[in-house]
Parts: sequence; C-alpha cells; structure tokens
Amino acid sequence: MAPADLLTSDLPVVLLSHRGPVGFELDPRTGERVLDRGAGGLVTALSGLAGHLDEAVWVCVAAGGEDAVVAEEVGDAPVRLALDGAPRLLDDGDPAEREVAVRLVPIPPEVHEPFYGVVANPLLWFVQHRLHDLKSSPSIGRVERAAFEEGYVVANELAAEAVVQQVEKVGGQALVLLHDYHFYLVGQLVRDRCPDAVLSHFVHIPWPGPDAWRVLPPDMRERLLLGLLGCDVVAFHTRADARAFVLCAQELLGLPVDLSDMTVQVPGRRVHVRVYPISIDIEALEQVAHTDASDEHLVDLDERLAGGQLILRVDRTDPSKNIVRGFTAYDLLLTEHPELHGQVQFLALLQPSRQDVPEYAAYLAEIGAAAASVNARFGTGDWQPVDLRLASDMALATAAYRRCDVLVVNAVADGMNLVAKEAVVVNERDMVLALSEATGAHDELGRFAVTLHPFDVAQQADALHTALTMPPQLRRDRREHAALVVHHNDVRRWLSVQLADLTDLRAEKRTKGTLR
Amino acid sequence: MAPADLLTSDLPVVLLSHRGPVGFELDPRTGERVLDRGAGGLVTALSGLAGHLDEAVWVCVAAGGEDAVVAEEVGDAPVRLALDGAPRLLDDGDPAEREVAVRLVPIPPEVHEPFYGVVANPLLWFVQHRLHDLKSSPSIGRVERAAFEEGYVVANELAAEAVVQQVEKVGGQALVLLHDYHFYLVGQLVRDRCPDAVLSHFVHIPWPGPDAWRVLPPDMRERLLLGLLGCDVVAFHTRADARAFVLCAQELLGLPVDLSDMTVQVPGRRVHVRVYPISIDIEALEQVAHTDASDEHLVDLDERLAGGQLILRVDRTDPSKNIVRGFTAYDLLLTEHPELHGQVQFLALLQPSRQDVPEYAAYLAEIGAAAASVNARFGTGDWQPVDLRLASDMALATAAYRRCDVLVVNAVADGMNLVAKEAVVVNERDMVLALSEATGAHDELGRFAVTLHPFDVAQQADALHTALTMPPQLRRDRREHAALVVHHNDVRRWLSVQLADLTDLRAEKRTKGTLR
Repeated sequence: MAPADLLTSDLPVVLLSHRGPVGFELDPRTGERVLDRGAGGLVTALSGLAGHLDEAVWVCVAAGGEDAVVAEEVGDAPVRLALDGAPRLLDDGDPAEREVAVRLVPIPPEVHEPFYGVVANPLLWFVQHRLHDLKSSPSIGRVERAAFEEGYVVANELAAEAVVQQVEKVGGQALVLLHDYHFYLVGQLVRDRCPDAVLSHFVHIPWPGPDAWRVLPPDMRERLLLGLLGCDVVAFHTRADARAFVLCAQELLGLPVDLSDMTVQVPGRRVHVRVYPISIDIEALEQVAHTDASDEHLVDLDERLAGGQLILRVDRTDPSKNIVRGFTAYDLLLTEHPELHGQVQFLALLQPSRQDVPEYAAYLAEIGAAAASVNARFGTGDWQPVDLRLASDMALATAAYRRCDVLVVNAVADGMNLVAKEAVVVNERDMVLALSEATGAHDELGRFAVTLHPFDVAQQADALHTALTMPPQLRRDRREHAALVVHHNDVRRWLSVQLADLTDLRAEKRTKGTLR
Repeated sequence: MAPADLLTSDLPVVLLSHRGPVGFELDPRTGERVLDRGAGGLVTALSGLAGHLDEAVWVCVAAGGEDAVVAEEVGDAPVRLALDGAPRLLDDGDPAEREVAVRLVPIPPEVHEPFYGVVANPLLWFVQHRLHDLKSSPSIGRVERAAFEEGYVVANELAAEAVVQQVEKVGGQALVLLHDYHFYLVGQLVRDRCPDAVLSHFVHIPWPGPDAWRVLPPDMRERLLLGLLGCDVVAFHTRADARAFVLCAQELLGLPVDLSDMTVQVPGRRVHVRVYPISIDIEALEQVAHTDASDEHLVDLDERLAGGQLILRVDRTDPSKNIVRGFTAYDLLLTEHPELHGQVQFLALLQPSRQDVPEYAAYLAEIGAAAASVNARFGTGDWQPVDLRLASDMALATAAYRRCDVLVVNAVADGMNLVAKEAVVVNERDMVLALSEATGAHDELGRFAVTLHPFDVAQQADALHTALTMPPQLRRDRREHAALVVHHNDVRRWLSVQLADLTDLRAEKRTKGTLR
C-alpha cells in the first residue's frame, strides 16, 4: 500500500469535472488566445493531483466561446498543459516540470444550457442545499423534463463517451475519478463499457436525506442514484452526507444496505460509500497571502480599523451562504451591545454569483438591503458597521483573513466550506472561527469554533458576542489547533488517501476475481 | 387480548388534544351559551373512542372566549358531555347513551398566542410539512425563542398538570393518549409524576427526517424529541414517518435504535414506535352524505355539469395542499387537450385557513390568481373550467364526492388525508382517485389510485388525463377496492387496535416488572 501522503497510482487516472484547470479566452485588445487558470477549491485540488501523476487525463467541458474553438481544433486528442508557473499549452517536444493532459468535451450550447442552467444549477443545487420554497418551487413542467432528457442526460452521455475513450486508450484498466453534481449518470455509463475500470464519484455538495430527493420525480431521482451506484465508490465530505446517501439507496431504490460498513448492495457487487473531507493547498495559499498586494491591503485594513475588531465573511452571493441572516444577527448584536458601536466592523467580501438565476439576483438585492439597513440604523459619519464589497479579490481576501478577529460562516448548508480552512491557516491575530453546524468543515473544526445555528439569529448574535469577547489565550489555542488540523489533512492528503484506498479496492477486487 | 374491533380498555383512559369534542360560544342574538361540535378528523375519531369507554376523560384547551368562562366556572372538575344527538352538558343525574367527561385546561391568551400562533402554527407545522423557504425562513430571534419558553413550554406544562391530576384521580394507573404537535413535551412531564401510567403519543402530521428538524435550534429539537420519548409508544400514520422518527432519535440525540423492531433505547427502557393509519367514521359520513341538503346539491351539480366530467378537490387553503400547482397542471391539461374544453370542470371546495398567518393569506391570493388565470385563458360564457368556492360546507362536499369523476389530492405533504378516504366510500360514479405519493393515504390506497408527484405539474397533467380517460371497468374495480380498504380499516379499528396493543404492552411491562 502506498503511504498516505504520496500521490501515486499504479493505474492510469482519468478525471472528470465540469470545469477544467484552464479556460481559453480571446484577449479583446490583441485578439490573441489567452489561458486563465480555473478558480475554485475543486479545480485547485484536482490540479494538485493531476500535476503529480504521470499518466492522468482530465476530461472537462468546453461549453462555448474559445474553449469550444480549441476543442474543435484538437478533436479527441488531449492537449498538454503546463502547470508550473503561468498556464500554457505544450507542443509535442516541450518539457514541463508539472503538466496535465486535458481532454475538452464539446457540449453544444443547446445541450449545455438546459443541462447546466436548468438541471444542474439550479434544480440539483437547490435540492441538495434544500433551497426550494416547496409550496411553489420547483414546479417541474415540460421545459424542466425536456431539460433533463435533452440536456442533463445528453451532456452526461457526451462526457461518458470522452471518459470511455480515454479509458480504452490505456487498455480499459484505469482509475476513473468522477466529480460532482453535473455528472451523476456517468458512472453507470462508463461501467457498461469499461467493466475493468475502478470507478469513483465524489459529490462535493451536501447530500440530503430521502425527503429532499422526493422533490424530484421518481424516475429522475432513481436514475441519478442508479448512475452513481454504477461506481465502485461514492465519496462525500462528511459522514452525515455519506449516511444520507446510503439511506436514499435503501428508501428510494429499496436496495439492501449496511449502515455499519457503509455499503450498498447492487446486483452482483457492493458499492462502498466513503468519507474524505476535502482541504486546501496550503503552500499555494501562503503564496497568495503574502504577495505585495495582500500586504498593502493589510496595511490599509489596519489603518482603517485603528485597533477595532474585524468580523469577516468571504462568500459567493449564494442563498445557501445565509448572508442576510448574518446581517440580521449582527444588527441584533449591535442593538443589545451599544458598547460595540464604533469598535467593530463587519467586512463582507462577496463574489456575485449566478446573476442570471432569478433567485440569485433577488438574493443579492436582499443582501444590499440588509447591509444598508444595519448601516442606516447604527452608522455615523466616522463608522459604518458593515463594509460590503462585491468583488472577487484574493489579495484582499487573504489580507482580511490575516487581520480578522472573527470569521463568520453561517451557511444553511455547505458541502465543506474551504474559507474556514483558509482563514485559520493564514490568520495572524488568533481569530475566532464562528462556524455553522451545517457545514462539512464543522466536523473537523467545530471543536475549535463557536458553533452557529444557521436559522437562529438570536443564537448567532450571542455567539458573535462570545467570539468578540473570548479571552486571548483561548482564542490562540483554538486557532492554533484548528490550523494544525488543516495542516494535517491538507489537499495532498485528501487526494493520496483516496488513491491509496482505490488501489486497495482494486487489489481486493482482483483477489475476489470480480475483475478480469 | 381483546379482539381488534372491540373498543375496550381495562384501564381508565385519559386523552389529550388541543381541540376537544365541543366548543362553547355565546349566541350573539340571545346571549345564551351554545355548544358546537368540534370539527376535523381527529376530533371525530377521538369522539368515537371516548363515547364508547366507561372511564375516559378528555383533556383539551380552553384558549379564551366562552371556553375560558366555562373552564373558570367548573375549575378542575371534568364536565359531562352527551355525545348522542346534539352536544349538551349533563347534570349529575342526567342519563345519556354516550357521554364523555371533558376537562378544560385554561391557557391564558398571553401564553396561548405564542404557543399556538408562533410555535405550533406555523413553526412546527412548517418544519414538519417542510414549508419553510429556508433561504429566509424561519429566522428565529428573541421573539421566537421567548414564544417557545413562555408559550409552548408553559402550555405543555399546564396540559401535563391537568393530565397528571386526572391520572392521579384514578390511582395513577391509566392509559394516557396524547395527541399531535401541540404537546410534544407532555409525555416526559407526565412520566415524571405518573410512572405507572402507560403513555402513548400520536403524531398526526408528517414526521420528516433529521434534515428538516435541524432547522430548529439544537436545544429546541432535542427537548421536543425527548418529550416524545417520555412515552412508551410514539405512533404515526405511516411507516415512513415512524422510520424518520427513529432516525431522528439516532442522529439528533445519539440514542441506540433498532430499525427492524422499531424501538428507541432510552435509559432504563425501550420506546416503541408504531404505525396506525387513521381512518374515518363511515356511519357518520354516510349520514351527512345523504341528507336533503346533500341530495339537493347533487341535483344541482348534475344539472350544471350536464353529463360532463367533474374533477374535484376538497381542502383547507394550506400551502401543504399544493392547490396552485394543481391548477397549473389543469391548465397544462387543457392546453394539450382541447377536446376536453367544455367537457370537464374542476370544482375546488376550499376552506379558508389561518388567514392571520401571512404565508396563508398570500397563498389564498395565489390560489385566486391561479384559478382566474385558467378561467381567463380557456373560459367562455357557457363554461368556466374552474369553479372555485371558498367555504366549508359538508353537504356540498359530500354531494361533490358522490358526483365526481376524479378526486385530486396532490399535497406536498400530508399526514394521512381523510378526504381521499371519504370520497372513495360515498362516490356513486366510480371516480378515479388521483393521489399524491406524499400523503399517508397513499400507503393504503396508492394501489387503487393514479399516483401524483406533487412537484411535477407535467406528470400531474398526464395523470389527470389518464384518470379522465380510464376505462369504466377499471375505474369501478379500483374504486370498489379502495372503498373496501377503508371499510376494513375504519376509525373504530384504528382505535381498537391501539387500545389492544397498549393493553398488551401494559401486560408485558407488568411481567417484566418494570411496572409496579
């Protein structure tokens, strides 16, 4: 067995995720093709994996624009992409210290739009974060049904075809690592054609219990579950998510399950349901957190705060992040604790998200209204209690991580929440983590945090007060312990443990003769 | 063991429910006190029980008005109430064929309002029917927390005190039958003081899985669960609800459970989780369905329909009933099947409900808008496709039951739904039952129904078409089988099986020496 901190696989690896490690765009000034590194925790994590493996192909979607042009140019062949330094395409002879082969799957806009814009987001995202207002939403009509059949199903078939081609190129034996809610049907499609591959599907967003899945019509929810159960392993960030998945297999499909060894029996084999909490690339984060730009933001924050306490949140403007209730709790805190006026500021760094989805546009408006309401009630010419900034700026975010006294994560549901992990690692003031019980991160870091109950603004206000007034030694101990946990289970470990487990599983299957 | 169809108990019975068998009011013209029989399936069912037992006391709430005046007059003593014929109070010597002793618990308005108007409805009702729009609701603040502590908890203590007094009057040995979501804390409170009583709590509304309960703060949800687990038996209408309760005990309280024998281990004893699907009083229904008033409505309906097909729904205007999506599905049906224009009518008999709750007032407005929209799109001077009537009229409802061709129940969540059971029993045209998979009734009647998926209006439109065009013989067979099921498991059986089981449980406890 490979040591758990070594990235290694004795089989070729094929990855699938919706977004890849790079996006192609045309520079509007020069008309030249430029490459942008993909953003987000998952892409960062997978880039770490792919760059360290000799034989890995990363299959991802080319949904239009310059991505589609590149996909058209290169056809079925993966492109070689350098991951050391700025991303760049490699020609045949070019050397690179770390590289990855990327296979772009062209998905026509008339397929991608219903796949992504109707089914994956918002339908599946909303089901899994339980964001529907069930008395009126969803209302699944002909449009939504067609979006599933002609969008989601077709996009999954296209992705599966590309994965199958890559697996067949290496003789049918590969580790296939499928990712997230865009591709729940791919597992079974690949198994049908590549019975010798070892298949894993990682679900990065919350997996709710059977009740929530009953919002989808029976045929849809059953096909999604059966697609996942086409894999050998279905993986989640938390035990609760994994357990909910097993209960879904039992209640919605009537399959025999074992809740102690966390397996689901399907005809002829058992599916293993596993837990691997994702983490961050600490080295890469430390680099970003100590650029000149970050240092300058830190000086600026220090000056403006003038010794006052900083409450921070860093989120996308997603309703699951619970931003409005966070401001309501802060309002209650300021109402009940006038001694804090002028002494504390709530910096909300929010990245606008999915503004083409009506619920998201409405939510951004509510966020603006809630922030303005707090400032109108308590603000003075010298002190605005909320500093709302709508942008994505990693230099500012890391400066704020370093400076904050309290980091607020009050999500109503969150698969993991990497912001919590990032902040405890780079913070320089022994911040208190105020962390929702509904985040995956709470499993690992809850012991060192002030727990927030996402629907209880009174409790959140009390918890913020506890955090702001916590004795320095206790803050220090907790922050240091939380950082140790993240250092121990960093993204490299997250990946290597999975590879080791899948390799073991493959050996076991060989012994039992269930593999050729 | 007592035969399952005999109402008998060797122990005195103490019942608790929020509403009792009768309400006291002042006649505004004469100023005299008048008695109104309580409405609703639960009250009907319990009246059936209480009237047949020699020693039964029914504890219920006097929340204000003339109920409170009567409660003040009689103090702790139960009043004797005749249940044969029109309800009337009995004096000491008065004979009556069937009577029940009613103990009114005065709950002051300043306790009852937060108990009932903030916590029980809407908070618990919304949690259990999953009606919250979680991105903004609930937002539990100081008001809601105080409503729990000073309303729900206090009302439960007052009710428990009255139950304890009645149990103590009969020497501490009694069957205590607690009912519904108003009184989740009473079980443990009564156990603490009456260890020899056999305690059962029946939950009449859906019991969702742990996810839904996590909407309540940990201390609230844990106290509610522990209150219920103070009983020997916790009972539900469906296996799914019972299973979800066991999973809640396991996941939210960390208690050992057994999902095969459906028990929860609490210190020193096991709690049994049981399933008893409630039913209707067929004799009483047949009487109401064949009054002159009902016959007249039937003649009127026949005339107006002139041979056309009648789709019917009978509901409170509760968002859980899914009335708007029902009209949306009907709109789609008429869009796709112009041959139905003028040939079908959708009669919606809706009883306005909880109009003091903003979500309910808004929902009534949406219902009106949706009905008007369908009529505006398809209606003519001769034919309005939707006939929306906002009233509670049992004579009209039963006439419509008799005449309808399709009964629609598309609830997003419903503990049982007795409308489905009523209609199949009195219908005279071999109606098709179109029944949501999310109702308790679907467990018993789903085999004989067209199943509706509550969130899928396209599926509902298709199912309505299937129902309207089903061959007559198949309709007849299914309706007759459904009626047989209801005749077999009528409300008398529902009650007698519970009494027999509780008597067995008591004998078992005696044998094991866990009772004195």
